[in-house]
Amino acid sequence: MKTKKFAVVLAGNGVFDGAEIHEATMTLYAIAKNNAQYEIFAPDINQHHVINHITGEEMNETRNVLIEAARIARGKISPLSDFSADIFDAIVFPGGFGVAKNLSDFAFKGSECSVNEQVEQVIIAMHKQKKPIGALCISPVIIAKVLKGVNVTIGQDADTATQIQNMGSSHSNTNHGEVTVDEQNNVFTTPCYMLNATIVNIADGAMNVVSKMLEYM
Amino acid sequence: MKTKKFAVVLAGNGVFDGAEIHEATMTLYAIAKNNAQYEIFAPDINQHHVINHITGEEMNETRNVLIEAARIARGKISPLSDFSADIFDAIVFPGGFGVAKNLSDFAFKGSECSVNEQVEQVIIAMHKQKKPIGALCISPVIIAKVLKGVNVTIGQDADTATQIQNMGSSHSNTNHGEVTVDEQNNVFTTPCYMLNATIVNIADGAMNVVSKMLEYM
Repeated sequence: MKTKKFAVVLAGNGVFDGAEIHEATMTLYAIAKNNAQYEIFAPDINQHHVINHITGEEMNETRNVLIEAARIARGKISPLSDFSADIFDAIVFPGGFGVAKNLSDFAFKGSECSVNEQVEQVIIAMHKQKKPIGALCISPVIIAKVLKGVNVTIGQDADTATQIQNMGSSHSNTNHGEVTVDEQNNVFTTPCYMLNATIVNIADGAMNVVSKMLEYM
Repeated sequence: MKTKKFAVVLAGNGVFDGAEIHEATMTLYAIAKNNAQYEIFAPDINQHHVINHITGEEMNETRNVLIEAARIARGKISPLSDFSADIFDAIVFPGGFGVAKNLSDFAFKGSECSVNEQVEQVIIAMHKQKKPIGALCISPVIIAKVLKGVNVTIGQDADTATQIQNMGSSHSNTNHGEVTVDEQNNVFTTPCYMLNATIVNIADGAMNVVSKMLEYM
């Protein structure tokens, strides 16, 4: 059987303004542990802002999503503009506030948000080819926004679930490590740090969502 | 049995100028997966420099080791000056160039390097109390420098092994996931990305070194 190839899209590097690091790392691990391959992508755009992760305050700096995400990728990363749906079997979005601040403006506009155009195109391209789309933590909101009419989970947060419904999608409540599968749309989601989780829960969630995606390939 | 408590010391956030992110994350995971606890520390000092992880070039920026490491720690981190050997059962140092650039100047001076004073004190304090000290990747060089006369591994790099011998310590060659145990000094080391490793190798190495440390507690 040909080795399955995942694209992993990162929103920066750090939970409060970028990609959540444990979710990103555990997603890469889950893919490799399942004998699949990954390539890492991020949009070549500036972050919405830079947050001091100790104080929670904004720092007077400008950082680039692609350059910061390269830290998680150990330098092996490509701009999202290079992505081609033809050469990947699946795509997965780890979470972190960067998804709601850099890949979209969901953090500020909720259901009225817009999604970064490249990110939107990538999701639509994979969906058209009926290839599995995975999303962890808060990332399901961008899938819900772009595809509409999909069923996802972000855990149990009622306000976010309402926003998802307002986008024309639906929400299923889940607990640690559980995966919501929308078979019709090939969309696979798991809550991770949208619940009050430990790093062991994150490893379980990432492993479960990647394993489930592989079952459907 | 009382839950064992690990201190994890980070050198920033990113392989080329800070802590190696996969090693750091997998170390936290290995500790939690073994039903132990962790607290995360980093020195409150500026990084030696900031590297663009795509190009490898230096960026005209100043970043703080503690503030950047907080990204891996999701904000739950303390300055290394707050560390007390009395309240921890073990300490572990993930790798990354930050260990050789921020926690010491090994990257520039080899065996003639000096180790950050706080880092040195922390290692000596744990060693005096005969508590396990773990080190991944390049981190064993700072243990070798501070304690002298210890046996460690950084994998198979002959030049680094020679530097370790020049410090008055000794080196054992190892392969992916293997742990070198210096029983007399309670020092546990594993090569991780000092070998040409995959993220699965890193997970194995972190799990093996943490599990081995727990056996000796």
